[in-house]
Amino acid sequence: MPSQFDPPSGTRDFLAADVERREHAFAVIRSVFSRYGFEPLETPAFERLDVLLGKYGDEGDKLVFKILRRGEHEASGEADLALRYDMTVPLARVAAAYGSQLPTPYKRYAIGPVWRADRPGRDRYREFVQCDVDTLGSSSLLADAEALSALHDALAELGLPGFTILLNSRRVLAGLLEAFGVSPEIGGGVLTSLDKLDKLAPAEVVAELTGRGLGAEQAADLVATLTAADSADRVRAALTKTDEGTAGLDEVDTVLSLLAGQIPAGRIAFTPRMVRGLSYYTGPIWEVAAAGVAGSISSGGRYDHLIGQLGGPDVPGTGSSLGIERILALLPGAGPAEPSLLDVAVTVMRPDLATESFALAAAARSAGLRASVYLGSSGKLGRQLKWASDVGAGFCLIYGDQEHAAGTVTVRDMRTGEQVQVPAADVAAHLAGAGRGED
Amino acid sequence: MPSQFDPPSGTRDFLAADVERREHAFAVIRSVFSRYGFEPLETPAFERLDVLLGKYGDEGDKLVFKILRRGEHEASGEADLALRYDMTVPLARVAAAYGSQLPTPYKRYAIGPVWRADRPGRDRYREFVQCDVDTLGSSSLLADAEALSALHDALAELGLPGFTILLNSRRVLAGLLEAFGVSPEIGGGVLTSLDKLDKLAPAEVVAELTGRGLGAEQAADLVATLTAADSADRVRAALTKTDEGTAGLDEVDTVLSLLAGQIPAGRIAFTPRMVRGLSYYTGPIWEVAAAGVAGSISSGGRYDHLIGQLGGPDVPGTGSSLGIERILALLPGAGPAEPSLLDVAVTVMRPDLATESFALAAAARSAGLRASVYLGSSGKLGRQLKWASDVGAGFCLIYGDQEHAAGTVTVRDMRTGEQVQVPAADVAAHLAGAGRGED
Repeated sequence: MPSQFDPPSGTRDFLAADVERREHAFAVIRSVFSRYGFEPLETPAFERLDVLLGKYGDEGDKLVFKILRRGEHEASGEADLALRYDMTVPLARVAAAYGSQLPTPYKRYAIGPVWRADRPGRDRYREFVQCDVDTLGSSSLLADAEALSALHDALAELGLPGFTILLNSRRVLAGLLEAFGVSPEIGGGVLTSLDKLDKLAPAEVVAELTGRGLGAEQAADLVATLTAADSADRVRAALTKTDEGTAGLDEVDTVLSLLAGQIPAGRIAFTPRMVRGLSYYTGPIWEVAAAGVAGSISSGGRYDHLIGQLGGPDVPGTGSSLGIERILALLPGAGPAEPSLLDVAVTVMRPDLATESFALAAAARSAGLRASVYLGSSGKLGRQLKWASDVGAGFCLIYGDQEHAAGTVTVRDMRTGEQVQVPAADVAAHLAGAGRGED
Repeated sequence: MPSQFDPPSGTRDFLAADVERREHAFAVIRSVFSRYGFEPLETPAFERLDVLLGKYGDEGDKLVFKILRRGEHEASGEADLALRYDMTVPLARVAAAYGSQLPTPYKRYAIGPVWRADRPGRDRYREFVQCDVDTLGSSSLLADAEALSALHDALAELGLPGFTILLNSRRVLAGLLEAFGVSPEIGGGVLTSLDKLDKLAPAEVVAELTGRGLGAEQAADLVATLTAADSADRVRAALTKTDEGTAGLDEVDTVLSLLAGQIPAGRIAFTPRMVRGLSYYTGPIWEVAAAGVAGSISSGGRYDHLIGQLGGPDVPGTGSSLGIERILALLPGAGPAEPSLLDVAVTVMRPDLATESFALAAAARSAGLRASVYLGSSGKLGRQLKWASDVGAGFCLIYGDQEHAAGTVTVRDMRTGEQVQVPAADVAAHLAGAGRGED
């Protein structure tokens, strides 16, 4: 039941364990991308409204969170800013703003939240992290292969179990339509229907295609070619009949051969029926399918005119986007439900012993350990040991009257309950040694 | 001159060198805070409007970025959400929402952007990172001392040159007013005037105080006590005349004695004339002054009823806030202006040699190096070497006809220009060795 203290609909609070899990994944991704020479870019959470509107189609425009003008203009009810909807429009603006300051080609990654006023649902959020890696300014298929290789390595290093990269090319699709005599006017609609072959029965897709104006035989032939057991061979045979198809096949084969040594066989496959919905792709396109998950968890492709269309310079581009929220949900175990907050918990048995306790915690920290004193009001050892256990401390340093008199500290191993007396001055060294002994 | 491609007024784009510099600082801070057992918290960028409004006073409310309702409600011109203005209101909401799931005390840090519709200016942004560390649920002065110690360690580990922590207590200020016979009705105004002692001449402050209703002698006496060379002694003498003053002094001395071993002498000083402007503080208060900088770069204090007032549970609280944007501006050198993007640049001399070049880059990456192939269209070695130099690569791998025929790779040291022939299969090992040799 929603409470007044919940975060806004479609957003989430991340407590410690979640933050750590997410940050770990982002760190893995950053490290992979930077190994390929991609550099980070961070842009503001909001852009001027005119920079965003008209870039995502009418449906997209409706999903943009708009920010009300301020001061005397607030009463107008008008907006002049809007929250970032994706990472691509800001990339186009940055390419226009800093052109000559940027390396050529400009290889950048961006990991950060975007906001969409979608109806919230299971695994669908209004604030979610997007994670893009793109190369602007290179027409080479090597750039596409690199974006794919980086995507593969990121997913592999995240430990994502069982995934497959589906590779195709817009030019393959164009060649296919040509080979089957589909007129260009209905080509887009035909591709939209073919895209449903992973959800609908072949006969249903055939019905859709004839509804779109394809001849019955033509539609049946096209669907049979794309769904046959020897589909790849049949598609290849069809494609070589046209120049566009030949060129598309060449693109796919070049990318596959570049990746042959990098991506294990079976993890990437030419998939001619894979149609990325977005019309701006111009060359190779790809999607990542994960075992047992509907839809794709990552995608990408070449978009040679998009940056210009979005208001940036007219440079070729290619890149991958990781559906990081979906990927996070698929990664194995979140680790212990109650993560350890401290390595060393230090008791405070009496106010006049607090300074020494405080110094013991500082000594443990300077030995590289996470340490803190008890901050509660109880002077009872039992209560303080319970706290030490609650925060997951490996050791508790007990410093009371006896220890004070003897110049020692009682070091309690919280797992075994074993206690040893250690001279106060040696505690940090003792703890460092005990930590090492465990490895 | 502002261009249509600039980020919105008061916001910034961060290109690679800036991102790396900022992320490095945030990583240092996170590491210090976690060493004290503070855990991370992340809340959404926006909150429901009613959660934010009325929490920051009338002036603050005006600075909140409001988000327009969506869909059919957009035309109303009304807002229902607003961008996060600070980290404290979200903390209060989280404390209310997850109370029993949180450790007691709840020690958390939060590092992330906040948004304020302030007039943009030099070093004043509408989007800036705030960095808070707080402990909820402990009345102990140990928690205040810990927040101060963590603040000190963070600033020290960031490498901030020359800073001083000014320590005071709200109870010291209350005791001081009492000792000088200032009536409670004008106490707040008197403190506001005293807070100007670091900017105005003593006589100007005396004039303000008499304007507020203090007797001329009373005002002169108060200002003299706070500005005398032996101010600390005179304040101490005055404070011991009242119960509140004695209690305040006790707070300050307890905190100072807890920190004596942790913060070098001279880096923290009891500063009775330091008045944090915010009325919600209830105990110790502190500010950090940096050499040559007006105003404070960090601040904090105990706020025992604030979380309740903000809609959270009525728990005691204390914490520090780092003015990270100001601190970043004070940190020494941003490193090289042109950071290296790659360790290893790989030529692509001919399309039919691309697969081998691509594999060489992959081999370098699997040896832990940052590597990429040339993605441009030139087949000229000179052009490709220029690119290798531009991206700051330490080595360039040249793979052309000759190398292809001999099964070798030419490894060029980009600093010395020296070139050696290495068998293709040994390149990764060779590079790893060369990298180590330099250390």
